[in-house]
Amino acid sequence: MQQGYFITLEGVDGGGKTTQIQRLAAAFAARGIDTVTTREPGGTVAAEHIRDVVLDKDLTMNARTELLLYLAARAEHVDHVVRPALAAGKVVLCDRFSDSTMVYQGFVRGIPLDQVASLCDFASQGLRPDLTILLDADPKDLLARRTQRHVEDRLELEGLAFQEKVREGFLALARREPQRICVLDALQTAGAIQTEILTEVKKRGILPR
Amino acid sequence: MQQGYFITLEGVDGGGKTTQIQRLAAAFAARGIDTVTTREPGGTVAAEHIRDVVLDKDLTMNARTELLLYLAARAEHVDHVVRPALAAGKVVLCDRFSDSTMVYQGFVRGIPLDQVASLCDFASQGLRPDLTILLDADPKDLLARRTQRHVEDRLELEGLAFQEKVREGFLALARREPQRICVLDALQTAGAIQTEILTEVKKRGILPR
Repeated sequence: MQQGYFITLEGVDGGGKTTQIQRLAAAFAARGIDTVTTREPGGTVAAEHIRDVVLDKDLTMNARTELLLYLAARAEHVDHVVRPALAAGKVVLCDRFSDSTMVYQGFVRGIPLDQVASLCDFASQGLRPDLTILLDADPKDLLARRTQRHVEDRLELEGLAFQEKVREGFLALARREPQRICVLDALQTAGAIQTEILTEVKKRGILPR
Repeated sequence: MQQGYFITLEGVDGGGKTTQIQRLAAAFAARGIDTVTTREPGGTVAAEHIRDVVLDKDLTMNARTELLLYLAARAEHVDHVVRPALAAGKVVLCDRFSDSTMVYQGFVRGIPLDQVASLCDFASQGLRPDLTILLDADPKDLLARRTQRHVEDRLELEGLAFQEKVREGFLALARREPQRICVLDALQTAGAIQTEILTEVKKRGILPR
């Protein structure tokens, strides 16, 4: 493998993205394939500082500010983490990427989608995932799991109606790009979800069948 | 005065922008006109947090990240400080605005100017200054003054060649928009500069002649 492969996991909070990324990294490692697991926003010192600002519960900010901060973190993350790993032939497993920006800042906050898409392309200099796994579920069904985690940031405090809009946004993106975005039922067991992800990964030739 | 008036001060560091803004505010106050003095990046709690990140000497970041952070701070600043003051009929005196972005991130860092301009318009939602005072001087002549101040941020540490490029960028903008951008010699005394600024302000009818 010369070129690397860029896989993102998306979906509402509590859908199991973190667990699946860990399992996927282990599955690749077991087959001798190097992975880099990372998350948005974050991944570099500057990006983590930006993350602290954008997720600070005590700060209010308008939608454009929030968008620009996520993109600032992304520009760092893409240049210093994602592209170097891909150039080294690695598989990059990323928790959230441009689809989250389209959903949270576009669909939900109401910034025109074409502006968000164009700004995302500027920040990432045109980098797009090879495969996106959308872990989808009705937010009501995920609520119990989420409140057990005791970890809530500003976004997670916005409630169920917000999460439902988020879900709709992700599903709308998946309808636009069915080849890239693979929708999986997040209410399955972690093992069942992992099996489905590995099937998708094998279909694309990134792992032997 | 119903609509307010938006005046920005621009130029290389050490050119006396802060002094002139203070004097200008006093001159307006003496004539019974309310002003709001503010600075970029900054002006709101979130914007000051962003300022701390973008001016942190210990952080390295790419040009796109820097641009997006400045714009994130601007979006806050415009929505919560500048536009409300203008809507209340006030004169807003702002230390740096979009021209600085065009110069530092466009001319100097090399991000295409049309992209910077379009991103600036997105961040400010099209807000542009009514009058911009460019305090211009050869950076070599300003160096002594600047080192006496003992206040250096990341940008000021980049040296003389950098400041010379900055100067060229500002002058290029002034050639493009001579009606809006008024170039004044920053090596004059503060009093002489103030007199010139007030002349420009009176020409535009914002103060009686």
